[in-house]
Amino acid sequence: MTYCVAVTTSDGLVFCSDSRTNAGPDMLSSYSKMHRYELGPERLVVILSAGNLATTQAVLAQIDKDLEHRDNTSLWNCEKMVDVAKYVAQVSREQQEEASEGVGSSGVDTSASFIVGGQVRSCKPAIFLIYRAGNFISVSEETPYLQIGESKYGKPILDRLLTPDTSLEDAARCALVSMDSTIKANATVGPPIEMLVYENDTFEADHYIKLSEEDDYLLSLRRAWGDAIQSAFRNLPRFDWEHRIRPSPPPLKAVKDDRRNH
Amino acid sequence: MTYCVAVTTSDGLVFCSDSRTNAGPDMLSSYSKMHRYELGPERLVVILSAGNLATTQAVLAQIDKDLEHRDNTSLWNCEKMVDVAKYVAQVSREQQEEASEGVGSSGVDTSASFIVGGQVRSCKPAIFLIYRAGNFISVSEETPYLQIGESKYGKPILDRLLTPDTSLEDAARCALVSMDSTIKANATVGPPIEMLVYENDTFEADHYIKLSEEDDYLLSLRRAWGDAIQSAFRNLPRFDWEHRIRPSPPPLKAVKDDRRNH
Repeated sequence: MTYCVAVTTSDGLVFCSDSRTNAGPDMLSSYSKMHRYELGPERLVVILSAGNLATTQAVLAQIDKDLEHRDNTSLWNCEKMVDVAKYVAQVSREQQEEASEGVGSSGVDTSASFIVGGQVRSCKPAIFLIYRAGNFISVSEETPYLQIGESKYGKPILDRLLTPDTSLEDAARCALVSMDSTIKANATVGPPIEMLVYENDTFEADHYIKLSEEDDYLLSLRRAWGDAIQSAFRNLPRFDWEHRIRPSPPPLKAVKDDRRNH
Repeated sequence: MTYCVAVTTSDGLVFCSDSRTNAGPDMLSSYSKMHRYELGPERLVVILSAGNLATTQAVLAQIDKDLEHRDNTSLWNCEKMVDVAKYVAQVSREQQEEASEGVGSSGVDTSASFIVGGQVRSCKPAIFLIYRAGNFISVSEETPYLQIGESKYGKPILDRLLTPDTSLEDAARCALVSMDSTIKANATVGPPIEMLVYENDTFEADHYIKLSEEDDYLLSLRRAWGDAIQSAFRNLPRFDWEHRIRPSPPPLKAVKDDRRNH
């Protein structure tokens, strides 16, 4: 399984991905799912991948191959980010078809999905989610993030925290907490966690970090979040019955009267 | 879809369920999924249900029918909570089989799953998750809760907050936050939310509340949790690069030199 998330903010983009790949629970390995293309001084594209590893590798190999011939459609010459998404979607469709033919009737799921983001020249930065079918969507103001893979565990925290005003670094921390919740819940999503933070109009990966299981920052984030959640929780409003005064013991007279029956 | 969760604490049990039932996105209705049996002074059973509504209704109808004849195996005479689980599992299996035969090859999924909990006489309170196949599990110290239905969105908060020492009311609040996260994320899980809090050895439903969408307590809980999460988030450890001093502007001389080129 995989979990990847990308977030747009007014200052830039955040990309975050896990690295666990599995073919059955006893066949775990580690592959980067974050692929970065810094193409000259005015073009940066990041691709996050999920799904069948052979297919995603074939898609990335084709993208690399296309880069070698500048006359081809490639990441070099797509005019806008939406054209980049269209191009990657097309490559993905072709490679999935080829893979599907290759495996025949073996029942292997050869599908793949991608998040593609970055910035081209004078256009605004953007991110797109390319579904396995090759169609794709972008974000909205209310939902400024996209996810692929095991997305449910890490969604509530994104919904509760991300707003159009969230700073780039807060969005990055939010993506990390979302990733950490997913890793805790699903054993087939795992570190190292890769994170890339892109500031608008810089056309380079401003901050890239790779966090292992025992990374100091990841551990301190996890501890701080756990503590903060606990203390946030202690301040939630009480139920009605917690305010009620416990019933006082019966008055002395009633007790005395009661004794007559004993 | 459905979301139900039950929690064990050292002081008692918590049960929480949504009420939305859907047969397609334009066929939403509201049915209680919490079924309570207060059987005399020393026996309380709560059943939470998920899955095909016709099947869960058939299972509950059979359980009610069995209660009418005290010689039958029924909720009246199961010796321990594990026997209650066995009995409900058996009824569930039978009714699923019957329903599956009934719908023939129409492709309707007639399966159902349940959480069964409560306390019988001098035994300890307990909760069980009865899978669609009729096998069942209980909790562990590390995982003191059980979920059925749309369980992923609401799981991380249970994992981060519930410990063997969590108080009964905190467990109830935690279940509500988990439910609220799920309702936010999945439109086929919806209010009213039912919650039942059971204190050990009372053999009655100590606190039962039903929260509509606009319930004051639910709104205040949602607001308080949102605010608390935001402020918890603001105190997370910063990234390395946020501490770094921003590069100072070039010294005056360099600026002067630079002007020569203009």
